[in-house]
Amino acid sequence: MFQRIGIFGKYNGIACWDTIDKLLQHLINADKTVLLDSASCSDFPHQRYGVEVIEREELGKQIDIAIVVGGDGTFLDVARSIVDYEVPILGINLGRLGFLTDISPKDMLNIVDEVMQGHYDCEERNLIRVRIEKDGLQEFDELALNDVVIHKTESPRMIEFETCVDGRFLNSQRSDGMIITTPTGSTAYSLSAGGPILDPRLDVLSLVSINPHTMSTRPYVVPGASTVTIFPHENCNGQAQIICDGQLTHHIGTGHKTSITRHEKFIKMLHPQGHDHFELLRAKLHWGDKL
Amino acid sequence: MFQRIGIFGKYNGIACWDTIDKLLQHLINADKTVLLDSASCSDFPHQRYGVEVIEREELGKQIDIAIVVGGDGTFLDVARSIVDYEVPILGINLGRLGFLTDISPKDMLNIVDEVMQGHYDCEERNLIRVRIEKDGLQEFDELALNDVVIHKTESPRMIEFETCVDGRFLNSQRSDGMIITTPTGSTAYSLSAGGPILDPRLDVLSLVSINPHTMSTRPYVVPGASTVTIFPHENCNGQAQIICDGQLTHHIGTGHKTSITRHEKFIKMLHPQGHDHFELLRAKLHWGDKL
Amino acid sequence: MFQRIGIFGKYNGIACWDTIDKLLQHLINADKTVLLDSASCSDFPHQRYGVEVIEREELGKQIDIAIVVGGDGTFLDVARSIVDYEVPILGINLGRLGFLTDISPKDMLNIVDEVMQGHYDCEERNLIRVRIEKDGLQEFDELALNDVVIHKTESPRMIEFETCVDGRFLNSQRSDGMIITTPTGSTAYSLSAGGPILDPRLDVLSLVSINPHTMSTRPYVVPGASTVTIFPHENCNGQAQIICDGQLTHHIGTGHKTSITRHEKFIKMLHPQGHDHFELLRAKLHWGDKL
Amino acid sequence: MFQRIGIFGKYNGIACWDTIDKLLQHLINADKTVLLDSASCSDFPHQRYGVEVIEREELGKQIDIAIVVGGDGTFLDVARSIVDYEVPILGINLGRLGFLTDISPKDMLNIVDEVMQGHYDCEERNLIRVRIEKDGLQEFDELALNDVVIHKTESPRMIEFETCVDGRFLNSQRSDGMIITTPTGSTAYSLSAGGPILDPRLDVLSLVSINPHTMSTRPYVVPGASTVTIFPHENCNGQAQIICDGQLTHHIGTGHKTSITRHEKFIKMLHPQGHDHFELLRAKLHWGDKL
Repeated sequence: MFQRIGIFGKYNGIACWDTIDKLLQHLINADKTVLLDSASCSDFPHQRYGVEVIEREELGKQIDIAIVVGGDGTFLDVARSIVDYEVPILGINLGRLGFLTDISPKDMLNIVDEVMQGHYDCEERNLIRVRIEKDGLQEFDELALNDVVIHKTESPRMIEFETCVDGRFLNSQRSDGMIITTPTGSTAYSLSAGGPILDPRLDVLSLVSINPHTMSTRPYVVPGASTVTIFPHENCNGQAQIICDGQLTHHIGTGHKTSITRHEKFIKMLHPQGHDHFELLRAKLHWGDKL
Repeated sequence: MFQRIGIFGKYNGIACWDTIDKLLQHLINADKTVLLDSASCSDFPHQRYGVEVIEREELGKQIDIAIVVGGDGTFLDVARSIVDYEVPILGINLGRLGFLTDISPKDMLNIVDEVMQGHYDCEERNLIRVRIEKDGLQEFDELALNDVVIHKTESPRMIEFETCVDGRFLNSQRSDGMIITTPTGSTAYSLSAGGPILDPRLDVLSLVSINPHTMSTRPYVVPGASTVTIFPHENCNGQAQIICDGQLTHHIGTGHKTSITRHEKFIKMLHPQGHDHFELLRAKLHWGDKL
Repeated sequence: MFQRIGIFGKYNGIACWDTIDKLLQHLINADKTVLLDSASCSDFPHQRYGVEVIEREELGKQIDIAIVVGGDGTFLDVARSIVDYEVPILGINLGRLGFLTDISPKDMLNIVDEVMQGHYDCEERNLIRVRIEKDGLQEFDELALNDVVIHKTESPRMIEFETCVDGRFLNSQRSDGMIITTPTGSTAYSLSAGGPILDPRLDVLSLVSINPHTMSTRPYVVPGASTVTIFPHENCNGQAQIICDGQLTHHIGTGHKTSITRHEKFIKMLHPQGHDHFELLRAKLHWGDKL
Repeated sequence: MFQRIGIFGKYNGIACWDTIDKLLQHLINADKTVLLDSASCSDFPHQRYGVEVIEREELGKQIDIAIVVGGDGTFLDVARSIVDYEVPILGINLGRLGFLTDISPKDMLNIVDEVMQGHYDCEERNLIRVRIEKDGLQEFDELALNDVVIHKTESPRMIEFETCVDGRFLNSQRSDGMIITTPTGSTAYSLSAGGPILDPRLDVLSLVSINPHTMSTRPYVVPGASTVTIFPHENCNGQAQIICDGQLTHHIGTGHKTSITRHEKFIKMLHPQGHDHFELLRAKLHWGDKL
């Protein structure tokens, strides 16, 4: 079922070779074809195993499944780059349990075996596509699995901007910025800013203002198919940026139009069979167990 | 198109005869058949106009459209009682602009004319069905257009209960209670308790805990088709109740199972053509206008 | 230094005899005079030790120190009843670590020895005095160490009331109620309702509205010497109560004037030497440790 | 009583000559000596009136009272620069009613007359002194009347830092930053970040984290005499700054120690006699009036 397996290491290049080593040997023993992501695994001693290291843009086309070994940041980066190839993705966490990388290294081999035998749960999560244009020219066109943020940079003062939903004016605000989050990102930065948690089965977006000056400004949840457009006021000039997944940034000011739509493809996240999202929430958020 | 018109007055029986008087004369002059709701208009001098006053359960079957003259509380009450007859509903507010009764008496006659000519926007809103059972016996079966609340009563102490979504355990909590709100109710009590605003186009429910003891307890948004079930802990005995739309109540304790599902029918709300929900939000919540 | 020791058991009468037993033997061996609180220890087999069980109002006059064996609720109850005798108080927690009962049974004997030798930290905490009058007659006159709450009872609707500070009108509000908390109570119910944490060295009060309808209503901190007065609107009639420390209640309605002032005496809380309140906060609230 | 009057114009140099013109003529007619602030009024046609324009550092020594014509930002700037000369300050707002500049231009002349005759209320507000040092060298030493903020700059990621109060470790946090506010600043940025409102009579500081990752991190109020110290984690390097009153900034990173203490002098704010701070709060925050 999954024959060609792509392995991705930590986003920031910190070595996680031990875990990848075990995983790789296990997969080779099971007669799988393993390909390594060049962006994260170029320093891995792959010659020892005779496996190929491939450019990421090429890798997506050649694999049946992506296995990410790292943290949630790594997962976000990989998910954005493979979503268009409709490759499912599985996350193994190094360090703390993540919302996305929810398999621990010690359970890894058993779960990978199960998945290879077709025993898994698959859920589809929406992504956001962010386009920034000015004077009719497109300057930025990227995806986000967690969230898109407009945020002030160095200025000690709040920024001002207008927000439209599906072409209709929603409001203007003075604030430190605003988060537009998917259900996936609703447990990330949005949660710190007071946003609600969105069930991963939902296809919606949540607009969460960051420290708004007007106290009645509140998180607003819209259908996933909505187009959200942001128009910065001139006090944003030199003082505001757009950030995708906390990883990709672009400065914006007056005249920049930022359009946020749902990406046409959804990412397929694999979990061990019987995976319980509520259990993950309870563990990460210290919620109450059964009485 | 709308020939038989039902008129409903204020929920709490306070006279709103002036407005109803104007409306009724206008409709009779336009050769419409007008029927009055007995629950709210039995004191109205209907003989003067030769119109009938009819029991509500009968009224729903006989009308093409319901016009509510009152506040949001009145609208909630009428909507629940006519939703099963698939009668559309129009709200005229006495006093302050409401989220549901969004037509002012001074614009009333023009807008009613427009609606009668088929010029209107229609949106469908989900309702909640609440069933409470104990020892296999059903004790309560009611609808809510805004929200269902579990709340402590006289006790100075918090209550404890468990919540399941679609049969899976979500969490247990110690709190003053919890709100399960529709998009329609998201601008009502839920907003005071820190819940997000849900776009009225969404078919979702939001679970908002009221003063939870655990600070990481946060609003949780689920698909509208979800079943939410609440199981009270024994400290609820004599100290907890379920409340629908702030109008219908039932005491619960250990052994009571409260099941919350989407009602099978949606209510059809009529608005003047070009109605803008965002404008209503900005006006009610003092949000920022265009820069 | 402390020769005559009063021992108080759990507020709700649940037996904590093992701990009291150990404590009592230890104190008798150290030649201390031990007196037991009749309200909480009347079922304790005191004859075995030849110690006296005394009515609480009398007990306060006869002891040099009060030792509370129980939870924070027990501590609150005892503190209110002994504050006027200027007796210092020490709290031993059964079950979970409390904010007030911060000594665990296993450390108890060592710490009691230290305290008896004069090695302790003493802090003074303010209490609130609550008086309710109607038509010139006083109906209620009680103390609170944590908080005073005005709260709706069975009504599904919010209550309305006016608040004055030092005779000047602060605001009117529609809400589920309001908490007036001391620094001691700022980590209790107030925290669930969104109130700030007040350093225990402060002599201030915090007014925290519970789910206010107006979203710009925010916690307001006033000097401890302030007089806060609450005037219920008529919709409170039969639907509102005043609650001291979650233990003492009184129904209020129109015509009731509730006056909240600082009690003239402060309670002396003893802690082991080197006690660190911040450590307690970090432990109870899962705050971040040193990086 | 007040014979020598200093006039200060808008901080950002925008002309407010009409108002200053009226004020100046009025004071000259009343035989007062008027001195103009060179920083804000150098473009004002002062020769016409034969009044002097003086450097600010000199001006503070020569005047009995400071009148600020501008917004709250201007008031903050002037207050910091004159506090050491113990000169009282009066604020006239251009544009919107401010929390600090609470006299409207149309009431200005009457109120100034009243003040000159000794009919006024005077309140004293605490200021914060902020010192930043690294490797034993002091890099920054400024005052703040509203607040001191540590905030991330361009980084899309949260910063980490440790906070001590009076030399004891309070907590470490991952967040967008933290506000340390006086009562005066508690209605400014702190309010947007969820902080409590502090009565202006209080001598306290409030520590308000900005979008903290740990949801149980809450505003913490300490005595005004406290020393708050902030130690940035290395992920602050190049990514964090200290901001006083939204006007003075300094970049910080590992090795920087930021110490926050109460300034030794308080600023004397003058108000019209009978001034009601609660009325200002109700007006600015849309709180409920008497029922």
